[in-house]
Amino acid sequence: MRPSGRDLSEMRPVSIETGVTKHAEGSCLIKIGDTHVLCTATIEPRVPPFIKGSGLGWVTAEYGMLPRSTTSRMRREAAMGKQGGRTVEIQRLIGRSLRAGVDRVALGERQITIDCDVIQADGGTRCASITGGWVALRLAVDKLMKTGDVTSNPLVDPVAAISCGIYAGQPILDLDYPEDSEAGVDGNFIMTGTKKLIEVQMSAEGATYSRAQMNELLDLAEKGIDELVAIQKEVTGA
Amino acid sequence: MRPSGRDLSEMRPVSIETGVTKHAEGSCLIKIGDTHVLCTATIEPRVPPFIKGSGLGWVTAEYGMLPRSTTSRMRREAAMGKQGGRTVEIQRLIGRSLRAGVDRVALGERQITIDCDVIQADGGTRCASITGGWVALRLAVDKLMKTGDVTSNPLVDPVAAISCGIYAGQPILDLDYPEDSEAGVDGNFIMTGTKKLIEVQMSAEGATYSRAQMNELLDLAEKGIDELVAIQKEVTGA
Amino acid sequence: MRPSGRDLSEMRPVSIETGVTKHAEGSCLIKIGDTHVLCTATIEPRVPPFIKGSGLGWVTAEYGMLPRSTTSRMRREAAMGKQGGRTVEIQRLIGRSLRAGVDRVALGERQITIDCDVIQADGGTRCASITGGWVALRLAVDKLMKTGDVTSNPLVDPVAAISCGIYAGQPILDLDYPEDSEAGVDGNFIMTGTKKLIEVQMSAEGATYSRAQMNELLDLAEKGIDELVAIQKEVTGA
Amino acid sequence: MRPSGRDLSEMRPVSIETGVTKHAEGSCLIKIGDTHVLCTATIEPRVPPFIKGSGLGWVTAEYGMLPRSTTSRMRREAAMGKQGGRTVEIQRLIGRSLRAGVDRVALGERQITIDCDVIQADGGTRCASITGGWVALRLAVDKLMKTGDVTSNPLVDPVAAISCGIYAGQPILDLDYPEDSEAGVDGNFIMTGTKKLIEVQMSAEGATYSRAQMNELLDLAEKGIDELVAIQKEVTGA
Amino acid sequence: MRPSGRDLSEMRPVSIETGVTKHAEGSCLIKIGDTHVLCTATIEPRVPPFIKGSGLGWVTAEYGMLPRSTTSRMRREAAMGKQGGRTVEIQRLIGRSLRAGVDRVALGERQITIDCDVIQADGGTRCASITGGWVALRLAVDKLMKTGDVTSNPLVDPVAAISCGIYAGQPILDLDYPEDSEAGVDGNFIMTGTKKLIEVQMSAEGATYSRAQMNELLDLAEKGIDELVAIQKEVTGA
Amino acid sequence: MRPSGRDLSEMRPVSIETGVTKHAEGSCLIKIGDTHVLCTATIEPRVPPFIKGSGLGWVTAEYGMLPRSTTSRMRREAAMGKQGGRTVEIQRLIGRSLRAGVDRVALGERQITIDCDVIQADGGTRCASITGGWVALRLAVDKLMKTGDVTSNPLVDPVAAISCGIYAGQPILDLDYPEDSEAGVDGNFIMTGTKKLIEVQMSAEGATYSRAQMNELLDLAEKGIDELVAIQKEVTGA
Repeated sequence: MRPSGRDLSEMRPVSIETGVTKHAEGSCLIKIGDTHVLCTATIEPRVPPFIKGSGLGWVTAEYGMLPRSTTSRMRREAAMGKQGGRTVEIQRLIGRSLRAGVDRVALGERQITIDCDVIQADGGTRCASITGGWVALRLAVDKLMKTGDVTSNPLVDPVAAISCGIYAGQPILDLDYPEDSEAGVDGNFIMTGTKKLIEVQMSAEGATYSRAQMNELLDLAEKGIDELVAIQKEVTGA
Repeated sequence: MRPSGRDLSEMRPVSIETGVTKHAEGSCLIKIGDTHVLCTATIEPRVPPFIKGSGLGWVTAEYGMLPRSTTSRMRREAAMGKQGGRTVEIQRLIGRSLRAGVDRVALGERQITIDCDVIQADGGTRCASITGGWVALRLAVDKLMKTGDVTSNPLVDPVAAISCGIYAGQPILDLDYPEDSEAGVDGNFIMTGTKKLIEVQMSAEGATYSRAQMNELLDLAEKGIDELVAIQKEVTGA
Repeated sequence: MRPSGRDLSEMRPVSIETGVTKHAEGSCLIKIGDTHVLCTATIEPRVPPFIKGSGLGWVTAEYGMLPRSTTSRMRREAAMGKQGGRTVEIQRLIGRSLRAGVDRVALGERQITIDCDVIQADGGTRCASITGGWVALRLAVDKLMKTGDVTSNPLVDPVAAISCGIYAGQPILDLDYPEDSEAGVDGNFIMTGTKKLIEVQMSAEGATYSRAQMNELLDLAEKGIDELVAIQKEVTGA
Repeated sequence: MRPSGRDLSEMRPVSIETGVTKHAEGSCLIKIGDTHVLCTATIEPRVPPFIKGSGLGWVTAEYGMLPRSTTSRMRREAAMGKQGGRTVEIQRLIGRSLRAGVDRVALGERQITIDCDVIQADGGTRCASITGGWVALRLAVDKLMKTGDVTSNPLVDPVAAISCGIYAGQPILDLDYPEDSEAGVDGNFIMTGTKKLIEVQMSAEGATYSRAQMNELLDLAEKGIDELVAIQKEVTGA
Repeated sequence: MRPSGRDLSEMRPVSIETGVTKHAEGSCLIKIGDTHVLCTATIEPRVPPFIKGSGLGWVTAEYGMLPRSTTSRMRREAAMGKQGGRTVEIQRLIGRSLRAGVDRVALGERQITIDCDVIQADGGTRCASITGGWVALRLAVDKLMKTGDVTSNPLVDPVAAISCGIYAGQPILDLDYPEDSEAGVDGNFIMTGTKKLIEVQMSAEGATYSRAQMNELLDLAEKGIDELVAIQKEVTGA
Repeated sequence: MRPSGRDLSEMRPVSIETGVTKHAEGSCLIKIGDTHVLCTATIEPRVPPFIKGSGLGWVTAEYGMLPRSTTSRMRREAAMGKQGGRTVEIQRLIGRSLRAGVDRVALGERQITIDCDVIQADGGTRCASITGGWVALRLAVDKLMKTGDVTSNPLVDPVAAISCGIYAGQPILDLDYPEDSEAGVDGNFIMTGTKKLIEVQMSAEGATYSRAQMNELLDLAEKGIDELVAIQKEVTGA
């Protein structure tokens, strides 16, 4: 029934390759089906002004899409002179989600910036960015722990994200682009490895959904998060 | 227990005054406690390029805060040369939410723009904008129906929004600014008058929440939406 | 003869409601006929770099129009990415005019920002902004005097502004929008309560005027200023 | 008494050299003392959208200062990414003033753009721009009349501008930069050759002035305009 | 003697992997040592306005660096609100160089956009972009020829680019980042496979060079171009 | 054969008038045929952050064209809100070229900014800017040496620039605009008075050139540089 031919609760194949760029303190290339996102983590000693001197750390994120990551070429945001509303929304979400899984006291007064750049897009880029972004963050923090700059683990529970939606009246897991374009209701669930909720965003465009459906979507999401967290743990040795 | 002294499930006083500006096709001033938002609806014959010739209507929204609507003065976005990420996120949410309650075929090929300008802010401005925005939209559509430009009612079920959050470990309804600043988890529920869900956004900042808590928040939200929709119906005669 | 049916020297009804927002140090809603402007005053301890350490105070202003304050909707300046030339011109005028009535030594090294936001426009918004702006400024200064932060009154003489023009060959006072659109010559007179001139701006668009007409316009302006200052004094107890 | 040593009603030496660039349809270099402005006129067949098809012509202006036209180097507006408020105000004034002296029916549906670029500044650049701008405009119109594109003279009465101010309590004519920096009251008078008023702008910065002083300034301005118009007529053969 | 330990005329290892993204009409990942650039080609039916209707084709290019492609993180140009001067210079160079190798009549009235995005940088990114960009262009044109949209080969002679410089007084080929930072003279040679020159850019920063040295650099460049073109031909089957 | 009727190796008449503005520390108006550029030098005590405290000086440049310096009017870059790619490229070239001829130790920790503003354009504006820019720089440095602020001459060898190209198959010197528009290959040579190379930029647009032609162009360039340097020396007494 799904355009992809997958079962309603079947995810696309997932792979995460770590250490893909030589400069970043942590990096990975996450592939969720045909969605490929390069995630890098940069450690810097400075923090934003509003926490200067607090001893607390900060994690932030930026997101971008290469112009031809999409079916037809998108205009380059740098050439347009600004990041679009969708980009801003997504990078705020990535940063907020990752921060929810960080013990900012244990991290200490430093900033880690996660850059998520979409090399190829086929739906679910923001979820892939969060899931891959956590891996890059984990690898960067591992470096800080190895050098003794951080002594207590600030990342006790992984953070992952998965999309769900209602397609042709049925809840489905992990929408690809053709499914996403058709679904009247879709959104993202961001959770920790122990299934605690960090963020739920479930939107309807020209449609609505019932509370019962919301519960079915949450069931699907928990299944997807389990699969993603297993891979995150495997590739980071966490 | 709440800074406001309200019960956990108690909303602030709500009032909606209609017809507050002479130029707009629909307008209201919504007050939810000390949060005051002016909402206006503008009808235009043109639609965005991507639906030109489709016969379908469009509803969009813009949001702004007056510089001194807040405790300390904010910089004017026009003077900064761009709308901030928060503004863009909010106005996209308002537009999406209102569209979910519109029969775009019945509306016909025209655009209605809802402007939501915050005169005074004390938490919950985006929810007030959606709830008041629907009233302005309803009044503008009434004009179109009175003149016969629209013959079938495109707004069968009202749209309203309410914030909920977890404060000191307990779910609360309709957060004001001091509550919002302290809550580790908070978000917005947007529903129709028949309690169908349009959008759920529940975020944690440096915290997490359980699925059971999510359900308690939904219970509170349904109570709040009931109260708001009753007022929307009363002031619009819907 | 005037579209408004008023006598040549007759102003529109004027009202000034004070204390309209809870956050600002001073505020009022001024209504001159159908022109409604919300004016707020914000006191800040910092001053612009060029007077730092001088002991002198500063008064500045910003101006904006809500998108649907006008007959047809204007684009939001924040969305366009800049303040238009007309906006910049007006806010510079408001700031300069109010400063002319301030004893900056008595004010002391602090800045007061006057925000003038047009809720509904029907001609004469810049004059209403200056007249209402002075009331907001007066109320903010009163607070500083009550707390003893300012000991000598820095606002000895009120500042008010009124438009005049030549319509169908005859000088008229206080133009509303239909009159303003038709007048070949129009401008603004800004004066103190004792009728000292602060600024005269009298422009012709595709027309000219004689020195005798200039004098008649000044006579009208003095009459209008008298009426405005009386109301300013009444609402501020000055 | 004046820093320049001039009499109260004495202008600086004025010269206008025409035909200074080979590409423009009209051009001149106007020197008023040490203030040097290059003015060019460009004729284009297109008009702004709001008069398309009306048969009426349009005259508009742009203004700029070379970075080192001033005592200390100013930042280049192109590098800053926008024209400052002062620039926008001045170029609107130049355009409006010149249009007041144009018979737009006689000009026919075409646009003439006057560019005023300040090569060296010593006070009074906006007045020099208007006075020199009219000469460039006159020369461009002469070309249109020579080719028969325009048959009835659209520029019957020259337009010129002069600054006046109150310095050390006394009205003075044609302020140079040191005088302008010290004067508490100053402004510009724009008139036609027959002494009809086009625009009066008289501002006080931290000061006020009386109606009697306003009249003395107008007397001075009329004297200055007479001298400028004589030179305009001489160099254009008008 | 070189920091890299290479011989003066020794290039870094070069590899070009084609077909790396599923959406683009042509794509490759070029690696020149540790410099990795993703190049994609997009075919569009529209051409720039200045050649509309001419029957001629157009090739243009855009360039970007991922924020953490460099040793320390660069600010994202989209977030800064504009492309920097270096970016603009480079993308103009890439477009101009590739166009020099295109028979625009044979290409027909269509545009091909080459996007060059630097995944990892270690010197020579603009040269890698041109060399890899030609491969992406070749693959896109192959598609057009396979479908019969283009019948005569518009790319008869490959285009490649290589950097040279003077390091510690000696001419060297293919500078990596540490060499580039130290060289007083460096630049790029862009040539066709038959060694015709397309562009020479040889700059000194705080240094100069002799005509004899210029000739030695050209000798080195010819050697490098030979090696690059051999690989281009191999991977495209050209 | 050349549109200008000049011999292949014949330059246009060159004149350099010094001391043309009263505010700048050094200035000249350079005329190369109908290309006229105003060059000014501004000395400032501050240097860019990356050399603060190094004791080294800095020379930088900015470039602009007056809107009607060209055959048809160009849009003003300040009004467009940014400097175009061509402007940025040119001003970076001017700065880099002039710095190559400066002993930055001898100059001492100060910055000299060269502004090059094109009054009238007829091809070769960037070369005229470099040649004239060096004269303005020389005059500013002379002032520093006269006051004893600089004791050792930081400008031992003049810097000049000349364009060359291939027109109708033949190498030509100093292209004017009609020649430049037609030449398939053209570029700029920047050298010192002793014929040391600073920068070579030779581009083909839809064409290529041989190494032999490159050598002929270099021969022409050396001839042109000799003539320009002679004039630079004459007007500066260097």
